[in-house]
Amino acid sequence: MLECLVNGEISTFVTATNRGLDYGDGLFETLSVRDGRPSRWQAHMDRLGEGCERLGLVMPPQAVLLREVQTVSAGLSKTVVKIVLIRDGRGRGYMPAQNATSLRIVSAHAWPEGIADVARKGIRTRVCTLRLALQPALGGIKHLNRLEQVLASAEPQTKEVADGILLDCENHVISAISANIFLVVDDRILTPRLDRCGVRGIVRGQILSVFSARCEQRRILVDMLPEAEEVFLSNSIRGIVPVTAIDEHDYAIGPLTRELQSWLQNGLKP
Amino acid sequence: MLECLVNGEISTFVTATNRGLDYGDGLFETLSVRDGRPSRWQAHMDRLGEGCERLGLVMPPQAVLLREVQTVSAGLSKTVVKIVLIRDGRGRGYMPAQNATSLRIVSAHAWPEGIADVARKGIRTRVCTLRLALQPALGGIKHLNRLEQVLASAEPQTKEVADGILLDCENHVISAISANIFLVVDDRILTPRLDRCGVRGIVRGQILSVFSARCEQRRILVDMLPEAEEVFLSNSIRGIVPVTAIDEHDYAIGPLTRELQSWLQNGLKP
Repeated sequence: MLECLVNGEISTFVTATNRGLDYGDGLFETLSVRDGRPSRWQAHMDRLGEGCERLGLVMPPQAVLLREVQTVSAGLSKTVVKIVLIRDGRGRGYMPAQNATSLRIVSAHAWPEGIADVARKGIRTRVCTLRLALQPALGGIKHLNRLEQVLASAEPQTKEVADGILLDCENHVISAISANIFLVVDDRILTPRLDRCGVRGIVRGQILSVFSARCEQRRILVDMLPEAEEVFLSNSIRGIVPVTAIDEHDYAIGPLTRELQSWLQNGLKP
Repeated sequence: MLECLVNGEISTFVTATNRGLDYGDGLFETLSVRDGRPSRWQAHMDRLGEGCERLGLVMPPQAVLLREVQTVSAGLSKTVVKIVLIRDGRGRGYMPAQNATSLRIVSAHAWPEGIADVARKGIRTRVCTLRLALQPALGGIKHLNRLEQVLASAEPQTKEVADGILLDCENHVISAISANIFLVVDDRILTPRLDRCGVRGIVRGQILSVFSARCEQRRILVDMLPEAEEVFLSNSIRGIVPVTAIDEHDYAIGPLTRELQSWLQNGLKP
């Protein structure tokens, strides 16, 4: 971690009994920030706001969050900024206090290495053993209950792979462990519906909106994966990443994946 | 909070970026402690140990935890002690570091008021609207991903009730929001199986073991609730609590509930 603000104050500490730690009672956003400018800021704020509504959290003013993002990323040309919002409150017990404010943790982290390389060469993946539970009350939002992702990422691997594909308990494809997934089938761009689990990613939302005529959100059974002509992942930090294999099935990096990458990287009109 | 130790040191702070806060990557135990002696200590340690095995966490030596429980409760005749165990580790990313140690937060809290009154008079309850998701990988253990309980406890209530009954998404009865549930039907003591969601409570385990001949763990559909002659809850702090109503259905406080209460309170042989 490079810099950290807790409720706007420089600090790397929070109280040891807080609802974020005790219950995961909060939300987070992970942003790509270049020269003090967070990418896709409004989309991140919209998702955070929707999460606050769903959980009954108080959304801090966007201007406050923006100032804190700019403060922790000041002087860095390229950095990852994480915003964590947790419901404030004292004492044991699940019931939230009425009108509890939200605690803000805004921290800057080193930009990960090798992103350009991964975008060019793609990654090999596996289907995770863990199946995601279906919880419509939490589906789509970026909340702090992430044990499923921790367990999936800790699964023993027989081969060197860079990410895991998560299915739900009905064997629908949902996402990668920390990215959304897209399949190209008959020149259509398919991506899973995320109403019962998974996180509605920011780049995913952008793709769905800009390429709406070619995109479809639907339930995708795992059996459908081999039918895909192209598979790619999307994530706010890594951008669009081609998938070259899921377990034993190989995929070529196709023209649509390359088209979307160049659109996202260069802001080109589709 | 009365006293708090973080990894054995007097402190009320933890680092603002930790896996407990970021992912709920940890476990907890809530103990009743009288004059420095934690009740049902070994059962709590066994459950914590099982949780560590399931999540791949390092279990601290029991002697260390016991010393810390005794330290925070020193001089208090009756107190609630909470142990939180989180997986240590730096940096963003779900994947746990190999051989990550566990961070311990051991805190003492005031003994809640009115427990004896509640045990005598019982409580009215409601069936929660939220349905628990089915996740066998996490079922039974007391992990830190508790947003379902937070949301259920925050549901608007039309009547004054003291707890909520949680069903799973297939309409099986699972538990109360922070207690286990038992039904007395034809003089048999029934309690839900907790292999897919819910927490295997310590008092629940004790009842199942001591009254094994009269107990049964099974799937209990919500339709079965009106058939019960008695309903009661169990919890490490509150002990055994009679349920006098679930929504519009009233229950008398029956002889078996009273028998178990006196067994638990007085250590009487059944």
